[in-house]
Amino acid sequence: MENSVFHLQYAIDTFYFLVCGALVMWMAAGFAMLESGLVRAKNTTEILTKNVALFAVACTMYLVCGYAIMYGGNIFLSGMGEVDVAGVLGEYAERGDFEGGSIYSGASDFFFQVVFVATAMSIVSGAVAERMKLWAFLAFAVVMTGFIYPMEGAWTWGGADVFGMYNLGDLGFSDFAGSGIVHMAGAAAALAGVILLGARKGKYGPNGEIRAFPGANMPLAALGTFILWLGWFGFNGGSVLKLGDIASAHSVAMVFLNTNAAAAGGAIAALITARIMFGKADLTMLLNGAIAGLVVITAEPSTPSALVATIWGALGGVLVVLSIVTLDKLRIDDPVGAISAHGVCGFLGLMLVPVTNDGAAFSGQLIGALTIFVWVFVASLIVWGILKAVIGIRVSEEDEYEGVDLSECGMEAYPEFVSSK
Amino acid sequence: MENSVFHLQYAIDTFYFLVCGALVMWMAAGFAMLESGLVRAKNTTEILTKNVALFAVACTMYLVCGYAIMYGGNIFLSGMGEVDVAGVLGEYAERGDFEGGSIYSGASDFFFQVVFVATAMSIVSGAVAERMKLWAFLAFAVVMTGFIYPMEGAWTWGGADVFGMYNLGDLGFSDFAGSGIVHMAGAAAALAGVILLGARKGKYGPNGEIRAFPGANMPLAALGTFILWLGWFGFNGGSVLKLGDIASAHSVAMVFLNTNAAAAGGAIAALITARIMFGKADLTMLLNGAIAGLVVITAEPSTPSALVATIWGALGGVLVVLSIVTLDKLRIDDPVGAISAHGVCGFLGLMLVPVTNDGAAFSGQLIGALTIFVWVFVASLIVWGILKAVIGIRVSEEDEYEGVDLSECGMEAYPEFVSSK
Amino acid sequence: MENSVFHLQYAIDTFYFLVCGALVMWMAAGFAMLESGLVRAKNTTEILTKNVALFAVACTMYLVCGYAIMYGGNIFLSGMGEVDVAGVLGEYAERGDFEGGSIYSGASDFFFQVVFVATAMSIVSGAVAERMKLWAFLAFAVVMTGFIYPMEGAWTWGGADVFGMYNLGDLGFSDFAGSGIVHMAGAAAALAGVILLGARKGKYGPNGEIRAFPGANMPLAALGTFILWLGWFGFNGGSVLKLGDIASAHSVAMVFLNTNAAAAGGAIAALITARIMFGKADLTMLLNGAIAGLVVITAEPSTPSALVATIWGALGGVLVVLSIVTLDKLRIDDPVGAISAHGVCGFLGLMLVPVTNDGAAFSGQLIGALTIFVWVFVASLIVWGILKAVIGIRVSEEDEYEGVDLSECGMEAYPEFVSSK
Repeated sequence: MENSVFHLQYAIDTFYFLVCGALVMWMAAGFAMLESGLVRAKNTTEILTKNVALFAVACTMYLVCGYAIMYGGNIFLSGMGEVDVAGVLGEYAERGDFEGGSIYSGASDFFFQVVFVATAMSIVSGAVAERMKLWAFLAFAVVMTGFIYPMEGAWTWGGADVFGMYNLGDLGFSDFAGSGIVHMAGAAAALAGVILLGARKGKYGPNGEIRAFPGANMPLAALGTFILWLGWFGFNGGSVLKLGDIASAHSVAMVFLNTNAAAAGGAIAALITARIMFGKADLTMLLNGAIAGLVVITAEPSTPSALVATIWGALGGVLVVLSIVTLDKLRIDDPVGAISAHGVCGFLGLMLVPVTNDGAAFSGQLIGALTIFVWVFVASLIVWGILKAVIGIRVSEEDEYEGVDLSECGMEAYPEFVSSK
Repeated sequence: MENSVFHLQYAIDTFYFLVCGALVMWMAAGFAMLESGLVRAKNTTEILTKNVALFAVACTMYLVCGYAIMYGGNIFLSGMGEVDVAGVLGEYAERGDFEGGSIYSGASDFFFQVVFVATAMSIVSGAVAERMKLWAFLAFAVVMTGFIYPMEGAWTWGGADVFGMYNLGDLGFSDFAGSGIVHMAGAAAALAGVILLGARKGKYGPNGEIRAFPGANMPLAALGTFILWLGWFGFNGGSVLKLGDIASAHSVAMVFLNTNAAAAGGAIAALITARIMFGKADLTMLLNGAIAGLVVITAEPSTPSALVATIWGALGGVLVVLSIVTLDKLRIDDPVGAISAHGVCGFLGLMLVPVTNDGAAFSGQLIGALTIFVWVFVASLIVWGILKAVIGIRVSEEDEYEGVDLSECGMEAYPEFVSSK
Repeated sequence: MENSVFHLQYAIDTFYFLVCGALVMWMAAGFAMLESGLVRAKNTTEILTKNVALFAVACTMYLVCGYAIMYGGNIFLSGMGEVDVAGVLGEYAERGDFEGGSIYSGASDFFFQVVFVATAMSIVSGAVAERMKLWAFLAFAVVMTGFIYPMEGAWTWGGADVFGMYNLGDLGFSDFAGSGIVHMAGAAAALAGVILLGARKGKYGPNGEIRAFPGANMPLAALGTFILWLGWFGFNGGSVLKLGDIASAHSVAMVFLNTNAAAAGGAIAALITARIMFGKADLTMLLNGAIAGLVVITAEPSTPSALVATIWGALGGVLVVLSIVTLDKLRIDDPVGAISAHGVCGFLGLMLVPVTNDGAAFSGQLIGALTIFVWVFVASLIVWGILKAVIGIRVSEEDEYEGVDLSECGMEAYPEFVSSK
């Protein structure tokens, strides 16, 4: 009889992971739609290709070596094999406390982890859009998802010491679902790429002019944001890591509630901020505001009240608008605002954690944020630099002018629609 | 040991709510895609902005005061806090009967409820498309989601007396998942807005002509319908409110089966009806037929057999085509057919409940439908009227001609595609 | 107390089926987006209409007679009614072994099965796109989903003898989630249709030229592929048929992991193959590669290691590119590559099963594949042939030239976008 309960608890905790993982996988479609909506028509096929291919690369590289670096063990070679049912039942029996740590299928854990890597990499593709070589990007994806991300993942969620020197957990660093570990990390890699790559031709004029390059397809951008919003319930909700007891289930529910509240707060705040600054209800800022709210709450979605979650999200919504404007003034050309939404707001999320979570310290958060940023930024800079030296990372001026769809993919995204550009 | 089972039951009932709530949240994307596919290109950015913003407003207002009005308690200020595990276990133990009422995280209940409000509001945006001021719409959304909907929600699902005069439950009113409470309510608010707003310029000619304004992007409309179809499983399935015993689980399964059957019946019936009336396989009628079937079955998806559910859906599919044609003759200009699909078919759904549900009475259904309609329609008329007097609800003739995307959002949805209109 | 555990197990197994079924339903949207992205603009409304209508037809026909043919019993007429709670508890108690066969709501099983039929039918619509009459297609859908598919489903998952002559299960045939039963079957019906229908006008020149007809909307094609990728977790994951014990839950997790790995492998392999063959990063081949990987792993996603699943997927990714090129040389005109991705790769999937599954035999797989293919192909050929003779299956040359959207649906998909074609 007791065993029956263990069977069910294992099943429910495993299924919860799989459902949340499927939602996170769905975020890959969200990034693809968001980015293809925000680039110009002539660069759409290429960004779709990058988004699908990077997801495939991320899944494969994390399987080959990423998971092993981050958590030890190698699923790729050893496989997961059969589950040792008697052994699992023994674990449960030994634990005694029903509410103890979760036990679930290692395969479900891997599935949940692997889609996180893809999220980090998806963030990069938008920032380098419209002028990066496709194969250089994919080569970077191999290193990012197989090594750079797993290293910082090992130092945080993996619990390893940073280069054997200090332990972030001991310093009071806490990042519930990855405001820093996933989102800011992706943005740091993107920033390194953008700096080496330079701005798109014509984006910044000689006298400080900033030209708008409007995205070609707003419904896709809105759809992408809705997909991300939905997928984020799995991203944050699954990061509770356990569902099968009263306290954990309630925690998962709070995370869903707060994730939604923060996104709503971010959207409203960005809409109002943009209205004040630009005089219009700017859809792209509204969308980035929702994403900013989601990124901010990701670092700690379980302890704030819904009121606080809404406010945290709203802070993100204001910040993302200011950051996008500022980066443009600094001539850091990020076509989709990914560095602002995921990087700047990811940092904000980390710094807000100690306000509601007693287990976290401001100093620990700062050291953790710096560790992640410096590692990912420098490592990425080196990899992008090598790629630039060896195969080049930027398409030719002519290809950029004609659009990378033809030069990289040999295929227009909208071959029949007459373009005014 | 007994406690372990309680833990698991709480977890499974909470998770079920969260999964269903996430599916309902996804319906917001469905409305956004459906509506942006059915409007003209020049009004697309604005309707996307409205759809994202209204969802954010709905979530926030329901948190601030809507939930408190509908069910009492205030999550926004008091928060949900920690769960009292011992207390929950005590509740279970006291209940004795395993199959008794459900116990689950209040946060999961809130999450499920909040996305319903957004659905009601999403219905409005399509009907007033292409000529309403964005900020007037959002101001209405604040009142609708914070007050008008929660009031009628309190009288129905909340169990409160209508203005202290009569109790709908006592009169035999039953609306399982909200054919009336959500869908007809949204349509009533929309109708009030449409009447005060008037038709789009050029829609109706001086000699009774009705001009078709074809939607700009049919794939988006089809995608939106598929999203709604999927999300509806959560909408209706979650309204069983409990999963964790045999009878409830079977009931949830029946609801999924019948929801799907009704949508299929509605789609086929509308396709055939349109073929007979117009001589063509009209895609927009097919889509509205599927939605009509979904709306009709929403009032009672658990008691009909699959055959009856298919027929109920088919009735909706026929009715929605007739209603759309009739409203156009009455010069009530609803660009996406929302009043017909959600209002007229919502009413049909309510009136069919007593056929298969012995607990409902035709008189109760009629009184309930009237109560909801009169309250929402009159309250909305007052709010729209005040907005019209104070800030105006209709854009200028020039802005309408040029498209509201430029005047309201400063951004075209498809800036590169040359338009023939 | 024991009964409580049975209640929960029933609930979790039922819910798991419903969640997986909802994901499979979502695949209908995936096919609709994929196909509408890959056809030309003038044939888009029609293919959307076909995709929505075929889903409705499939659901209704399987309810009316398909399920009864495949598994016996008739849900449509008898309904599912109330669940016999005491009877279910008795079943559990009798079974003794907690890990025995699953018990769940029959309604959830039906829901899961019905969406599979729609998948098989969705495969057909893409292959016959751009020149088939809409109503002839829907008439075929009635027979395919109500009779042809249920017959071969009865011989495989239903366990019935093939025309009373031999039993595929006894011969060692195994098809976990339907590489052959669903995907190759759909492709066989498509192939029969394509042969009788002929190629699109102008596709093949008199001197062996093959003209590319580029799809009108690449983001939709990518979105469709992501939707299919997501939905496939339900397709394969749900086919374990049971979640509620440790071994089953682990198996479901392995299936999710391997399904994802195979899709990733297929995508990467197709991208590289296309790069080598065509010199470009061909997005449509990348997408077909992911789908091919998914189709291949569908026959046996539970026993391979992640490494093997990746390789199986990669084999599919290479094969699909070669197959698409070969079919074009044979002048078999399949606008979306469905016959290659679902048919050829479905066959590959079947033949790989015995490598990791000891319960399957190569001879059994071959006989099973032949049985399915011959039955579906011949039966479809007869039905398409009758339709061709009686009402005609191909639109007029003029309608094909103008696009079937106007002739069949009276509605353009993108009425405002000026077309260059």
